[in-house]
Amino acid sequence: MAVQVGVIMGSNSDWPTMKHACDILDELGVSYEKKVVSAHRTPDLMFEYAASAHGRGLKVIIAGAGGAAHLPGMVASKTELPVIGVPVKSSNLNGLDSLLSIVQMPGGIPVATVAIGNAGATNAGLLAAQILGTSDPELTEKLRDRREKLREHVMQMSETLGAEQ
Amino acid sequence: MAVQVGVIMGSNSDWPTMKHACDILDELGVSYEKKVVSAHRTPDLMFEYAASAHGRGLKVIIAGAGGAAHLPGMVASKTELPVIGVPVKSSNLNGLDSLLSIVQMPGGIPVATVAIGNAGATNAGLLAAQILGTSDPELTEKLRDRREKLREHVMQMSETLGAEQ
Amino acid sequence: MAVQVGVIMGSNSDWPTMKHACDILDELGVSYEKKVVSAHRTPDLMFEYAASAHGRGLKVIIAGAGGAAHLPGMVASKTELPVIGVPVKSSNLNGLDSLLSIVQMPGGIPVATVAIGNAGATNAGLLAAQILGTSDPELTEKLRDRREKLREHVMQMSETLGAEQ
Amino acid sequence: MAVQVGVIMGSNSDWPTMKHACDILDELGVSYEKKVVSAHRTPDLMFEYAASAHGRGLKVIIAGAGGAAHLPGMVASKTELPVIGVPVKSSNLNGLDSLLSIVQMPGGIPVATVAIGNAGATNAGLLAAQILGTSDPELTEKLRDRREKLREHVMQMSETLGAEQ
Amino acid sequence: MAVQVGVIMGSNSDWPTMKHACDILDELGVSYEKKVVSAHRTPDLMFEYAASAHGRGLKVIIAGAGGAAHLPGMVASKTELPVIGVPVKSSNLNGLDSLLSIVQMPGGIPVATVAIGNAGATNAGLLAAQILGTSDPELTEKLRDRREKLREHVMQMSETLGAEQ
Amino acid sequence: MAVQVGVIMGSNSDWPTMKHACDILDELGVSYEKKVVSAHRTPDLMFEYAASAHGRGLKVIIAGAGGAAHLPGMVASKTELPVIGVPVKSSNLNGLDSLLSIVQMPGGIPVATVAIGNAGATNAGLLAAQILGTSDPELTEKLRDRREKLREHVMQMSETLGAEQ
Amino acid sequence: MAVQVGVIMGSNSDWPTMKHACDILDELGVSYEKKVVSAHRTPDLMFEYAASAHGRGLKVIIAGAGGAAHLPGMVASKTELPVIGVPVKSSNLNGLDSLLSIVQMPGGIPVATVAIGNAGATNAGLLAAQILGTSDPELTEKLRDRREKLREHVMQMSETLGAEQ
Amino acid sequence: MAVQVGVIMGSNSDWPTMKHACDILDELGVSYEKKVVSAHRTPDLMFEYAASAHGRGLKVIIAGAGGAAHLPGMVASKTELPVIGVPVKSSNLNGLDSLLSIVQMPGGIPVATVAIGNAGATNAGLLAAQILGTSDPELTEKLRDRREKLREHVMQMSETLGAEQ
Repeated sequence: MAVQVGVIMGSNSDWPTMKHACDILDELGVSYEKKVVSAHRTPDLMFEYAASAHGRGLKVIIAGAGGAAHLPGMVASKTELPVIGVPVKSSNLNGLDSLLSIVQMPGGIPVATVAIGNAGATNAGLLAAQILGTSDPELTEKLRDRREKLREHVMQMSETLGAEQ
Repeated sequence: MAVQVGVIMGSNSDWPTMKHACDILDELGVSYEKKVVSAHRTPDLMFEYAASAHGRGLKVIIAGAGGAAHLPGMVASKTELPVIGVPVKSSNLNGLDSLLSIVQMPGGIPVATVAIGNAGATNAGLLAAQILGTSDPELTEKLRDRREKLREHVMQMSETLGAEQ
Repeated sequence: MAVQVGVIMGSNSDWPTMKHACDILDELGVSYEKKVVSAHRTPDLMFEYAASAHGRGLKVIIAGAGGAAHLPGMVASKTELPVIGVPVKSSNLNGLDSLLSIVQMPGGIPVATVAIGNAGATNAGLLAAQILGTSDPELTEKLRDRREKLREHVMQMSETLGAEQ
Repeated sequence: MAVQVGVIMGSNSDWPTMKHACDILDELGVSYEKKVVSAHRTPDLMFEYAASAHGRGLKVIIAGAGGAAHLPGMVASKTELPVIGVPVKSSNLNGLDSLLSIVQMPGGIPVATVAIGNAGATNAGLLAAQILGTSDPELTEKLRDRREKLREHVMQMSETLGAEQ
Repeated sequence: MAVQVGVIMGSNSDWPTMKHACDILDELGVSYEKKVVSAHRTPDLMFEYAASAHGRGLKVIIAGAGGAAHLPGMVASKTELPVIGVPVKSSNLNGLDSLLSIVQMPGGIPVATVAIGNAGATNAGLLAAQILGTSDPELTEKLRDRREKLREHVMQMSETLGAEQ
Repeated sequence: MAVQVGVIMGSNSDWPTMKHACDILDELGVSYEKKVVSAHRTPDLMFEYAASAHGRGLKVIIAGAGGAAHLPGMVASKTELPVIGVPVKSSNLNGLDSLLSIVQMPGGIPVATVAIGNAGATNAGLLAAQILGTSDPELTEKLRDRREKLREHVMQMSETLGAEQ
Repeated sequence: MAVQVGVIMGSNSDWPTMKHACDILDELGVSYEKKVVSAHRTPDLMFEYAASAHGRGLKVIIAGAGGAAHLPGMVASKTELPVIGVPVKSSNLNGLDSLLSIVQMPGGIPVATVAIGNAGATNAGLLAAQILGTSDPELTEKLRDRREKLREHVMQMSETLGAEQ
Repeated sequence: MAVQVGVIMGSNSDWPTMKHACDILDELGVSYEKKVVSAHRTPDLMFEYAASAHGRGLKVIIAGAGGAAHLPGMVASKTELPVIGVPVKSSNLNGLDSLLSIVQMPGGIPVATVAIGNAGATNAGLLAAQILGTSDPELTEKLRDRREKLREHVMQMSETLGAEQ
């Protein structure tokens, strides 16, 4: 089966965050590729990657970046595939710069933005699966099962609440 | 054909913003329904709407809200469909509260967040189409044509730049 | 005596914060129950909890959550009991997202919001007692005594100021 | 019947905001008094007001102020009654200063903070009623009826959505 | 003489701001061209423009954009010429998003960022002239004269201060 | 000689910050007293302190507090002496809440606000000395000497710059 | 009598704000001079003004500026007189930039910062009078009278509250 | 050859940041001098430095400072050379104060601002080289080579992505 999701990030220092997206895709059995693609240091590679993604059979792109985070928006400008942007926590402004640089896109070129940091990367993986799930009922079923387990996990939490006191 | 996209908002005061999402769906020929569903004032209706969406054949939900904007996240908690959140500009904090309330979801329940206000609503419509396009090549083609027109429009702008001086 | 206060939180990782509310209730002899209830992962449980709270004899609900903190507001949408919201410090934006997600409720559905983090949780416990105190003079008396002790404690601080130099 | 709620504000320029709290109390038939009490310009009056409130039979105080908004917190320091703080929108920082000055109280002295501006004032009135409702089932019933009307109002909104197009 | 400065902007709605840069270049007799180049809607044109700028004899590029403002940084990624970024005031977040999207560039690819809005555009024109002035003493002389006039203008302001009272 | 400066703070946890003000007063030989006075936990003591300050011969009050920092403004409301406010760094919002709570005073009641944290406390000590210096030329002379030493210290820094490489 | 207070501002566009400081000085009979002195456009004049202020008999300097507001801090670096900084509201960031540029001075060089805008300018005038009052009991008396009138004015406000309804 | 770039900073505590600018200049073989010059503690030295820079043959000045960071803007007010401002991360507000104090310059006096902290200092060195490169093709060639190496470095990153798992 062709690779369905491309997970890209501006630097390998983004990997500890973006790994959470890959973990979800692994868990759900969604095929993906991962790659370092920098908007500012490898702009041509970025454009090539984005422009060829649809032809190579990718269905969704997940792009993570921090600071003046241009990767998700620029990839989105070169493809009609849905692009999910993950704001990586920046060293000085806690990811607020990353978030605003990714989410405040002008009308015409959307980026599906998730939360700053690890939770956001986890959700990027899930959102990619939800998107694929719109035409893959089996995958939707897996997502439903995952939710059910989450629910049960929360239900059990109450029992140990404060036990460590 | 069944309705594919549900466009919901917390109040009809959100309509001038959310209308931009509907305009895009109209333009691209994507079938949709629109509805006022308030997380805080009609919580049961919201849950019912979200829980029944998949069964009714909806593929994507677009939810707009302002201030302590709980609608997109709560809808997302009750469906496996992809949910797109539009932060509506709030009267006091310019939509920063709306944005953070929508985008900072915990790991497990994603909301695909777009920009604050009209540009965000436009992009919500486009993102919904991109998602549907992952299994509808014709729709993707329409998106490609739309981009091409945008591109041409920008190319022509330069010619009149400063002409009004 | 029936339980008077329900202390709920979105995850057991919120416990180190929310514990401060429980400590106050213990200190003042107010009966309470504590539970993990997640807006996003256990939405039905949350609605059930909120909808049944009045009937079960609860008088006040204290709800803590972080990030896109929807728990307090959604619980408030399903009960006429006063709901106190505690913004738990988030990992990236220091709880500013939690605060705005809780406090900026639309007209119609109030949440009594306290400070971010431990001080807020302490004050949530005290506020719950103040609310119960509106019809329980003995409890108000205990609050008055507590204040008096706080006052004396502060008065004594000056004597050791700078002693560690 | 004795007056139950004291509505105070730092200046009569806060009245257009605080009026929304009084409107709710009028609507629900809750007795109240309203007064200008300035933390900075009439500090003794403020202390006197707060210290005598319980003895005069008040059950709840609603205090609105803007900018370096000290009124709610200082009143709270002089009474065991629950104090609800309304951040009035400030001319320069949109009420963010008002909000932080009111909500970030130290452990020991709670202020029940609501949203910035008119929605917050409306909710202050409702929260006061909820607090009184903990020992007044009839008032709680009125609140329930009000919610039901809100719900119906929202349900009807959908029908006219976009009709003005 | 070859064109020395390229003034580009994401949309012609940026012109009322960017016009202030052109006014300065006109005043100082610096040759320039102006063009609408959108990072998101005409990405290929943008790359082409940036990649060919040096070969066409340009010495400095001034790029203005708002919101998720990627134009200055992306142009900088494709040229060794100094790029000056002008954060255009955005409709919702007052240009804070534009500023952070432009200034927070990763190490390796600088953008010389100026103030938000008109003052920033004026200063972009002056900064371009200062840069050209490092090898054009005559232009530096013109800048010195301009400053002298500014100085005299300020000196005269005091005389009329409060005269309109 | 009578004590000239009163240094007060909301808690002894503020001492590590406020100590820097006392260090300056010690260095310059300005007599002072230091005390814990809490706006919220000892409101009456605070009013008494402020109201009696002038009569006891104090000339300037330095007040430090964090979070919803009401101490400087409330002291200012009860005395005609100049009050200097030091925003103590808060645990969650880095002192932004402290700063806004202190500086955004309404017209009529000024607080002379300095920087957040240690630098601010140091400057509070210096500002108190400058104020006393307006009628004490010897003290002004000491301040001038101190500046001269600062200047010399900075001049010498360059020599060792990068020596640790 | 020699002029006691110097009121300076970066541009005559700051006059509508700074006028409020002069109004207070006029009201209290404090002698002052007013002048446009720009940190960036007349740096030498600024240094000359600051360095000569003490010798010319000035006791306090009030300096107002907006944006990257360097005037108060730079004047403070050249004089031992107390310098009061007024953050003028800026066109894009509402004066938050002005406030941070003025208040966040490094240890060694204090600026007594007041609120953003008109209220701040009013308070700058009052603070200057309080400082002069430390050696002028008559002036302190005038300040006390002014407060008393403020107090009475507030007391009367309550009577007309809501009368315009 | 004459020194081309002056690297100055407000304190030697800024050196760990500003060192990154010097490292770039060393790498590219650009001659520079480094010096501690404090806007607030050595204002005359600062003016002298700025006023004499052009005459001494400097072509570009890089100035780093934190908090109420006035050094870059004040140096810019005394020279026609391009001035690059580096916002040094401040201890309390993460450099947001430094950034706004440097970038928000009024029309007339530009400062070329780069990112907060180390990345910004690196980019200040590169921007200085780009400016010098406008009349030094060899230096531009070196910058192009450096970019090529960056590009290759990024290309290789992908291969090890996740290898540490």
